[in-house]
Order: sequence, then C-alpha cells, then structure tokens
Amino acid sequence: MAKVFSIRVNTDAEGMYDITREVKNYVRSSGVKDGIIVLQTLHTTCALTINENADPDVKSDILKDLGRKFPKEPYFDHFEGNSDAHVKTSIIGPSLSLIIDDGKVLLGTWQSIYLMEFDGPRAREVKMKIMEDK
Amino acid sequence: MAKVFSIRVNTDAEGMYDITREVKNYVRSSGVKDGIIVLQTLHTTCALTINENADPDVKSDILKDLGRKFPKEPYFDHFEGNSDAHVKTSIIGPSLSLIIDDGKVLLGTWQSIYLMEFDGPRAREVKMKIMEDK
Amino acid sequence: MAKVFSIRVNTDAEGMYDITREVKNYVRSSGVKDGIIVLQTLHTTCALTINENADPDVKSDILKDLGRKFPKEPYFDHFEGNSDAHVKTSIIGPSLSLIIDDGKVLLGTWQSIYLMEFDGPRAREVKMKIMEDK
Repeated sequence: MAKVFSIRVNTDAEGMYDITREVKNYVRSSGVKDGIIVLQTLHTTCALTINENADPDVKSDILKDLGRKFPKEPYFDHFEGNSDAHVKTSIIGPSLSLIIDDGKVLLGTWQSIYLMEFDGPRAREVKMKIMEDK
Repeated sequence: MAKVFSIRVNTDAEGMYDITREVKNYVRSSGVKDGIIVLQTLHTTCALTINENADPDVKSDILKDLGRKFPKEPYFDHFEGNSDAHVKTSIIGPSLSLIIDDGKVLLGTWQSIYLMEFDGPRAREVKMKIMEDK
Repeated sequence: MAKVFSIRVNTDAEGMYDITREVKNYVRSSGVKDGIIVLQTLHTTCALTINENADPDVKSDILKDLGRKFPKEPYFDHFEGNSDAHVKTSIIGPSLSLIIDDGKVLLGTWQSIYLMEFDGPRAREVKMKIMEDK
C-alpha cells in the first residue's frame, strides 16, 4: 500500500467535485480499523470541504453565493487575474482531518467530501494520509 | 475508554456553543500525555471553530456579522431554505485538529472551542478521536 | 527534541507571514519520515492558511479583499474594537494538518504556509506537533 495516496480530479470549471467514494475506498483498502485520515490539496486555487450530498441545489447555491460574495474585483493586482480564487481557497481551506472508526471514515448521513474548484479547468491532486491508532 | 467519543449539543438557534470543558475532560480522562485530538461534526449546517472566551460580545458580533454577510438570498434554490447555513458551514469548517501536550489540550489563554449552529434548534453531535504519540 | 515546537512571529500589522521555512526545518530536524504535522495558533485574532508563494500581489489581494468584505462594523459591540479580526480568524481557521512524506512536509510547487495577522502588531506563537507513522 502506498504510504500517501493520491486522488486525481480533472475539473471543468468552478464546481464541487465529490471525492467521498475515493476516500472511503482508500480507507477500506488500507485495512485500518481506528485512526484518522488527513486530506490535503497541493494547489492554491481549490479547496476541500464537507457538505450536503442529497439535493444538488445545495452545491450550486454554495458556489453561486461564494461567487457573488467574492467576485473578481477591480482592486486586485495579481497578474493572473484569479485572486478571487485564491481568496476563496483560504476561506474554505486546504486540508481536512477526519476520524476513522471501525474501518470506515466517519461521516454523517448527509455529509460528502468535496474538492471545491475555484479556477478550472485544471488537473487537481488530493493527497491522503492515514494515521493508524494501534 | 470508547475509541471515539461523542459530545451532544442541543442547540436553540444560531449560536456559538462552548464545548471546551467537554473536550478538556475527555483528554484528561484518556490519560494521554502527548498527541493530537481531532474533532468532527456529523452535520452540514453547523461547524467547529476556536475564538475568544472572555467578552460574550465577541460571539454575538461574529454571529451578527456572518448573518449579515451571508443571509438567505433570493437566488437560492435549495428546497429546505437553509442554504445560508450550508455556506457558513463550509466557510467555518467541519473539523479541527488540536495538540495535546503534557496531558492537556493546548489552548491559548483566550481560546475556547465552539460548535457554531447556523440552523437550529437541532440535536448535534461532535465526535472526538485522540491519537497518542507513544 | 521538544515534543511540541513553537514558532514565534512578531507581526507589524495585518499581514501574511510566511512560516514555511520554519515548518520545513522542524520536520527535517525531527528525522520523521512519514506522518503528519499539526499547526495551531494560540490566539483569537490571527489564523493559519496555505496560499501562493510566487507573486506577492496574491497576498496583498487576499488581505485587501478580506479587509473590504469584513471591515469594522458600526453594529459591533465588543469593547476592544477588533471584532472584524475575530470574524476573519474563524473564517480562515486556527489550525492546519499537513502530510509528511519521505521526510518532508508535503506542499505543492506554489504553496506556502502563512500566519495571517488581522490585529497586529502582536507577538504571536504557532505550535507544531509531529505525529510519526511508525
């Protein structure tokens, strides 16, 4: 088993990309019963979050709202023109720590894990590290 | 000792609920001297944060400000009408990792740990997992 | 080796202070090959994030944008007058968990680790704890 596992996500544009299945599969395949898992992006214009997995309107509402509240601003100086994406990345955050209990990543009924893309299309990587409680 | 411990918080409405005592008690009862503790909610309309524990006006100012900056918007589509709570949950975040040093969870003089309710009244659960540095 | 290591940052004012070198040095000096590192502030008006390290305009754009979106408001009651800093601290967050792989803290090409000061000048402390995967 690789000591650090990588999820690749090819994004189209701004969006919330569900990576729950990949995280669950990795935890299952590790055989670890108790511990934690740390997820981390290697980028500066996408982030990681947990939110609702049932009504897809939740995802589009979140993206719409962050887009309206943190648009591209005339006072931005960064030459690439994507400072709005950098702002949203720091607001949502680059890493998540989740609990592994009884061989499964602990998630509520309505929780899924998402990569939030603020600046696609891009090829993104999420790294995962399991720490076992022996 | 349970491998994953649960804190239950019955919320009234939007609010910041101090769970510092429960976290400290759990770390003390675990007997763990060095390590980390991961806290995680199982919900999608409440979050975890650390902020000031002295003047209660800080809590009400934070809630007021998040409420004004991220209100219910006419462009939200989610049928439950609580997309503002989902947005704030991703902004604040679903998990926290804190250091355990010399048998105690490391906190600054003015720091307390809060469950932030954006959509109550609800029965909430915060899960805690200690990873010992042996 | 100290079990918990401290980085001290003397801030001038609002700013993003790069602590990547200190974190990398601590991981290297620990000799740990695989694991995670948890970073945590002990304060309530500064936070930790990861963002771009190349164009300094990214940092000033982020600070400018957070300053415009979350200014001091007439409706704040906290007697110290820095509730805007408390709000931004909870939005960005007090802790980070990062992966250690092959003896190095895992960071993307453009990622650096920053202490975000929202209320300086102050003497700040960031605590670090390494959890080794043996």
